[in-house]
Amino acid sequence: MTHRVRIGLLGCGTVGADFAELLVERRAAIESVTGLSLELVRIAVRDPRKPRPPALDAELFTLDAHDVVKADDVDLVVELIGGTSAAGELVLAALDAGKPVVTANKELVASAGPELFAAADRAGVDLFFEAAAVAAVPMLRPMRESLLAEDVTRVVGIVNGTTNYMLTRMMGDGLGFDAALARAQELGYAEPDASADIEGADAASKVAILASLAFNRSVVADDVSREGIVGLDREDFELADRFGFDIKLLAVAERFADGGAVGAQVFPALIARDHPLASVRDSFNAVFLTTSAAGELMFYGHGAGPRPSASAILGDVTGAADQLVRGTHRRVPVGPPAVMRPTRDLVHSYYVRADVDEAPGVLSEVTGVFARHGVSIRTVDQHGSESQARIVFITFPAPEHALHGALDELRGLGHVRGVGRVLRIHK
Amino acid sequence: MTHRVRIGLLGCGTVGADFAELLVERRAAIESVTGLSLELVRIAVRDPRKPRPPALDAELFTLDAHDVVKADDVDLVVELIGGTSAAGELVLAALDAGKPVVTANKELVASAGPELFAAADRAGVDLFFEAAAVAAVPMLRPMRESLLAEDVTRVVGIVNGTTNYMLTRMMGDGLGFDAALARAQELGYAEPDASADIEGADAASKVAILASLAFNRSVVADDVSREGIVGLDREDFELADRFGFDIKLLAVAERFADGGAVGAQVFPALIARDHPLASVRDSFNAVFLTTSAAGELMFYGHGAGPRPSASAILGDVTGAADQLVRGTHRRVPVGPPAVMRPTRDLVHSYYVRADVDEAPGVLSEVTGVFARHGVSIRTVDQHGSESQARIVFITFPAPEHALHGALDELRGLGHVRGVGRVLRIHK
Repeated sequence: MTHRVRIGLLGCGTVGADFAELLVERRAAIESVTGLSLELVRIAVRDPRKPRPPALDAELFTLDAHDVVKADDVDLVVELIGGTSAAGELVLAALDAGKPVVTANKELVASAGPELFAAADRAGVDLFFEAAAVAAVPMLRPMRESLLAEDVTRVVGIVNGTTNYMLTRMMGDGLGFDAALARAQELGYAEPDASADIEGADAASKVAILASLAFNRSVVADDVSREGIVGLDREDFELADRFGFDIKLLAVAERFADGGAVGAQVFPALIARDHPLASVRDSFNAVFLTTSAAGELMFYGHGAGPRPSASAILGDVTGAADQLVRGTHRRVPVGPPAVMRPTRDLVHSYYVRADVDEAPGVLSEVTGVFARHGVSIRTVDQHGSESQARIVFITFPAPEHALHGALDELRGLGHVRGVGRVLRIHK
Repeated sequence: MTHRVRIGLLGCGTVGADFAELLVERRAAIESVTGLSLELVRIAVRDPRKPRPPALDAELFTLDAHDVVKADDVDLVVELIGGTSAAGELVLAALDAGKPVVTANKELVASAGPELFAAADRAGVDLFFEAAAVAAVPMLRPMRESLLAEDVTRVVGIVNGTTNYMLTRMMGDGLGFDAALARAQELGYAEPDASADIEGADAASKVAILASLAFNRSVVADDVSREGIVGLDREDFELADRFGFDIKLLAVAERFADGGAVGAQVFPALIARDHPLASVRDSFNAVFLTTSAAGELMFYGHGAGPRPSASAILGDVTGAADQLVRGTHRRVPVGPPAVMRPTRDLVHSYYVRADVDEAPGVLSEVTGVFARHGVSIRTVDQHGSESQARIVFITFPAPEHALHGALDELRGLGHVRGVGRVLRIHK
């Protein structure tokens, strides 16, 4: 028996057009396996003159997105407009009208998630957003379903393809920051304005979504403290290499056993070269989960790109359509807001680089500062010329406030000429 | 609203006991998120005198497995007996009685899959078997659901933890085969009789299951040709290392674009050290999928062990219970038997090692044999003493029958003293 499910699409940019084409391409195969006939019936666009994929009938297009959401002949809505205000209104309107929604909008889910999840729950329909986290990598539904009985304690992800591409080139080919960014832009991995990538905002949205599903507590993008990759220089990569590390922009969320508070951060980190995340190169993404019973799990694949995103959206549409015809749905298993542990109390090991005068007693003075702030030194590496030395410290784990106290005092010392970029070390 | 789902467990060995304990441990958390109250009501065991986990009431135990399957107070059956004949009968009886079944039994699913899938479909209930493939790694349900709209063309897995542990030690620590096996047995990674691991039968069962879901065509263990890791020696690892490769036991299934025939094999292979699968070390497993729209995906985690398996089983039980109370189920999306392409027609690049007499014209004679069989040589590396030389060839892609033709002729040459283990090269 074939069930027809009529789809209204909001937005037909690069991802929307690829989704529409992929749907046409895979429609017969999906029907033969699932009995679902997925039909694209309306497409809302902003610019009526823009060229559209030839496979799409011109009559499908409209300028009225609200009309698509309300139309009686639309059973399921796919939101690919982006942004938060108009998209948020449309998604809520669709859910309130009892229509399942599939969205790829990470900013929206990471900021207004709790409100949307509640609306879907009230309406008794599905809200799926696989493409909002790691695009093509099917991991949100496994987290919502297969791992529902698991106790996930930590999420560590490489969730931004642009910066991972840049870091791969900086480490592998010795490119500087600007050259790596230019290369990423040439290849279309980075927008002309790459600030959301290189400053970590994109990764913060994604880890908020992942943490919400991992811990069953709502985490929003504003809960995530973040540092981007701006300011990393060639010497950081050379030193990392010498110590056996790679440098990756990590998005980390952890739930602490004592009381269940959550810490969430994005930062560039040193990671041991034999860690599975270190093998994630170029524009690939991966998310590493630590769970109580299953142990360590990793999901790897393309985190961006129109066709990988279209694949995730189509997977979600198929799933939501299937549940719709069965008259069932799955609540997004996200509970009340997480209690966030302040970033200053989060604990890491650190790599610290300082330039000091080459003079008797300087090393003792500098290490004394760390000791006074309760930061123990694991290794020290000093090399330099006659008058100046570069010291590289790797510390034992300490709270961020302790490290920052030590660095503030260090910067005030007469013999210290400068303190370089601090990197956390992923263990 | 709480829905009570009563579970009958068949088998309470190491995995069964860990599953029962994990269920008790996670029960309240599962109920708070899903509203499902999962209750273990009957446990069938063979030996009434064996000690059982103290958390399990003695009254739950029975010696009559058929009674558990038929009992009116059992809503869902978990099969952890293993083996194919008794387990197969019990699973079919449970499905015929309209009860969803969760099993971790890879031999059963890989041999009797089509019959079981049909029975589940007839009864309109779920049959879940996540733990039968890569234990803790949630990838069968993503393949059944998230990737249902995808066109998967290739599956490459490291799906046996015992052999991956051994190969990691042989490559990293220079252990010989026997020492690596002894070490794996000491650590409990290998059974006293490790033949199913080292000869590739375990991996063949798992890749049959993965291929069936990837290609929507039934593939059984007997369809998979296999070579194990017996006979690999230290020199293979040294040479692999010199050429920039790692050695892994790969389970490979491919669907060919021309006509949709399927090839499925298990073999030890050379794999480039920067391939994500090369970063899968020790007893970890991973499966790499090639898909048309999502591109490359990898799922990584523990492929064995009682607690990781228990995690996957509990995830399946939660999912099946959820569908049961909603009165819905998901058909296993596996179609008719795959048309298998004969192994002799499958195409690979090869690494071939041969010992020859050091004499003029020998290299030309040997390479002439390859040429006559249509196997082109990519690189040749020759080194040796005064009277004997070791030649290592890496070939361009060629069908297996062409390589075997060349090797048979090679072995008959007067100057050839021996041909070593042939390894395929994963590209």
